[in-house]
Amino acid sequence: MAARTIYFGRFISTPKPDELLIQTGAVLVSSRDGRGVIENVDWTVNGPDDALSKFGIEVPVITAHDNGFFFPGFIDTHIHASQYPNAGIFGKSTLLDWLTTYTFPLESSLGNVKSPMYKDSAETPNPLSRAKAVYNRVISRTLAHGTTTASYYATIHVDATNLLADIAFDKGQRAYIGRVCMDRPETCPDYYRDESTEVSIANTKASIEHCKSLDPSGELLAHIITPRFAPSCLPETLTQLAALAKEGDLRVQTHISENLNEVELVKELFPEQKNYTDVYDHHGLLTPRTILAHAVHLSKEEMQVIKQRKAKVSHCPASNSALGSGFCPVRVMLDEGIEVGLGTDVSGGYSASILDAVRNACIVSRHVGFVNGGDSRYNLGVAEGLWLGTIGGAKVVGMEGRLGGFEKGMLWDVQEIVLGDVKGSGDGEDTDVDIFGWENWENRVAKWVWNGDDRNVRKVWVGGRLVHERTP
Amino acid sequence: MAARTIYFGRFISTPKPDELLIQTGAVLVSSRDGRGVIENVDWTVNGPDDALSKFGIEVPVITAHDNGFFFPGFIDTHIHASQYPNAGIFGKSTLLDWLTTYTFPLESSLGNVKSPMYKDSAETPNPLSRAKAVYNRVISRTLAHGTTTASYYATIHVDATNLLADIAFDKGQRAYIGRVCMDRPETCPDYYRDESTEVSIANTKASIEHCKSLDPSGELLAHIITPRFAPSCLPETLTQLAALAKEGDLRVQTHISENLNEVELVKELFPEQKNYTDVYDHHGLLTPRTILAHAVHLSKEEMQVIKQRKAKVSHCPASNSALGSGFCPVRVMLDEGIEVGLGTDVSGGYSASILDAVRNACIVSRHVGFVNGGDSRYNLGVAEGLWLGTIGGAKVVGMEGRLGGFEKGMLWDVQEIVLGDVKGSGDGEDTDVDIFGWENWENRVAKWVWNGDDRNVRKVWVGGRLVHERTP
Repeated sequence: MAARTIYFGRFISTPKPDELLIQTGAVLVSSRDGRGVIENVDWTVNGPDDALSKFGIEVPVITAHDNGFFFPGFIDTHIHASQYPNAGIFGKSTLLDWLTTYTFPLESSLGNVKSPMYKDSAETPNPLSRAKAVYNRVISRTLAHGTTTASYYATIHVDATNLLADIAFDKGQRAYIGRVCMDRPETCPDYYRDESTEVSIANTKASIEHCKSLDPSGELLAHIITPRFAPSCLPETLTQLAALAKEGDLRVQTHISENLNEVELVKELFPEQKNYTDVYDHHGLLTPRTILAHAVHLSKEEMQVIKQRKAKVSHCPASNSALGSGFCPVRVMLDEGIEVGLGTDVSGGYSASILDAVRNACIVSRHVGFVNGGDSRYNLGVAEGLWLGTIGGAKVVGMEGRLGGFEKGMLWDVQEIVLGDVKGSGDGEDTDVDIFGWENWENRVAKWVWNGDDRNVRKVWVGGRLVHERTP
Repeated sequence: MAARTIYFGRFISTPKPDELLIQTGAVLVSSRDGRGVIENVDWTVNGPDDALSKFGIEVPVITAHDNGFFFPGFIDTHIHASQYPNAGIFGKSTLLDWLTTYTFPLESSLGNVKSPMYKDSAETPNPLSRAKAVYNRVISRTLAHGTTTASYYATIHVDATNLLADIAFDKGQRAYIGRVCMDRPETCPDYYRDESTEVSIANTKASIEHCKSLDPSGELLAHIITPRFAPSCLPETLTQLAALAKEGDLRVQTHISENLNEVELVKELFPEQKNYTDVYDHHGLLTPRTILAHAVHLSKEEMQVIKQRKAKVSHCPASNSALGSGFCPVRVMLDEGIEVGLGTDVSGGYSASILDAVRNACIVSRHVGFVNGGDSRYNLGVAEGLWLGTIGGAKVVGMEGRLGGFEKGMLWDVQEIVLGDVKGSGDGEDTDVDIFGWENWENRVAKWVWNGDDRNVRKVWVGGRLVHERTP
């Protein structure tokens, strides 16, 4: 990539939850230290030549499509890379039987020849080869959907988890890679479980080291401590994982209060803790670097603790609907001052697209309104949904002020969006977003949000590096 | 098209709500009378040559893609063709303000130079040219999404409505075309209203005649009597429209009980009728040929009347969510014996895809379960969603036994679906449905339902005629 590049055209972002900011001008990105940072912006620039002249330099200029715009890359705060092949496969299951029926068999098949998935297989099982196919595809797909940063769950297997790190790093996505910790015999199947706390910690350390060897700075790639969820971990493991996170100043990710049966199970397994939140708090896992996925059934008291600990929430609306988990009251959490981003939660969620999560967040927010007497205060609008998928996500992964916008000092993690153009003939470009030409840009963005997909993502950059380009 | 054609390969359909029928074999379609009817089927056929030999004829054979299947065309039982350009544009509005803010301005612009949409336009308004662009695009799009039959609302304008009929007929979609009747001054804006009952009836007759002139049989194209909804029509107009429907044995379409404020409005405007359903019943519009869109807030008593009259319901889940209308209890209506199909309800609904409606129907059904104490009995599964979009729709539009399956005597209204194929490299075809190869066909169908789009629709036939082919 060039040491410095100018991007010219329309820039759209959501600096505040209810503000859709539409600007035209130019942004100067410097990659001289290898990081792709916005060095300067000028919203008075009216063309490529004007940009060169106003910035007073001679560098390449990349111009956004007339019928499109630059938009901050999406941040997926919760996605199980290992479950990607099951996207859309969940039947009428709910969380706990979904884990047993669909999820543990698939995850185990990425590292264990004795996985139930290989039971009737005609071919000789090759777990690492399967992991390679799955991880190559999920990284390519999420990049194609404009996801520039993702917080991944892998599996319990060190080799396969490290392979996910290699692939993400190679393809250039900003990624937090979690080796899944699960070692509690009552809740984990024999064929898919860390043998002991010791093994859990040792294997986690091995993956931490591997991530560090790829990116010592941790800015593009880092390990994230990943106790699957409270019920699947021995208490001692939770405590040691918290120590590991503290020692390495690492992010933590886990699940919380997704499903009512799960909440009951946590009560049974941790009788001494007040509630689900208290289990994590008690074991030292509720930190400002902690991402809690789902948070559907939290009490007000639990929300207060989460807020005090500055832990973050990943809202996964598609998954909460698909697995029948319940309505997550996003507005209530935002009002409480809790930081919330979006997660696809593949494959509880069926789609690897954060744009789809934006749509589902908007839809579910209206449902939350229905069950609260038709109160439209709960509604999330398009701008707010996009804000959750960008700035909200940046806060959740601890990159506030670095990701999600076009301000000086921010990283160039950006997607170029191109919409469709209707000709009188009924022909047009290959996209499901039909712009007739009379729509203002606010409405064009709405049309993108509701009918857009990866076909509208023309180019994707992470830290100034072009990491995806759509082949027409 | 050839007089007779054999289709060979995998055929998937949903003969019953909870049955996903996966067959391989061959289907012989005869177009000798110009209608494209299934003349014979043989599920023992194992290849194109075998098909020719078993049917004992020499005709062209069309083979489905190995990684795909033939599926019945989708039936969209409720779509406003005229609102297509607003797909995705609704903000945080609800039904009644959505009509005033977004819908009446757009609809009027297809026939009235004084439409508010032209207020700030730099160009000289040309409503019919706009109608042409909109209608060309919406028919192309719905065909591309696999919709072989659609029940359309146009606008109040005869010319533009007839143009929609021309375009649908020309492109070969099975279509019911409704000129919208709305003449009640309290509820319709001056710039978009039939001047009187007489005008409403005369203009409707003009559109009926035009449709008849295109297709005297009414099998491929027919007018459908379309009182917008009770509040927008003078009582006398409702009565005369019912007479017109009876006289011509025409279908009727309207809206019912979509939004609570609308239900209140109906009470005010029709104080002598017991409820919303009774308004239609009283005016003779509740017939076995009547499609009632939405039906979100019906009482059990109203459901009974609808069932007795054999009127049909179009379930529009995306729209009900987007406009915050409420939860439609599909399971309850099905259990009551009411016939239900799916509608996209563009542009209350944001998507022109019935596959998207299938997804939203499945999702909303889980929400209905949440608000009924977590009862999973309300859940619609993938097969049931597809059934609603095919066989359910066939019942709703009065084509039961003619559309929705692969049985002898049925019309060849069919889509060829092709899924993606993951190679180890992470490359594959351009679709968002990644098949890794180990999934069984039931799961592949689920993956299609949850992540499929128009890219998976390779070919579409209506009555044996190829009406859409995806250009790679």
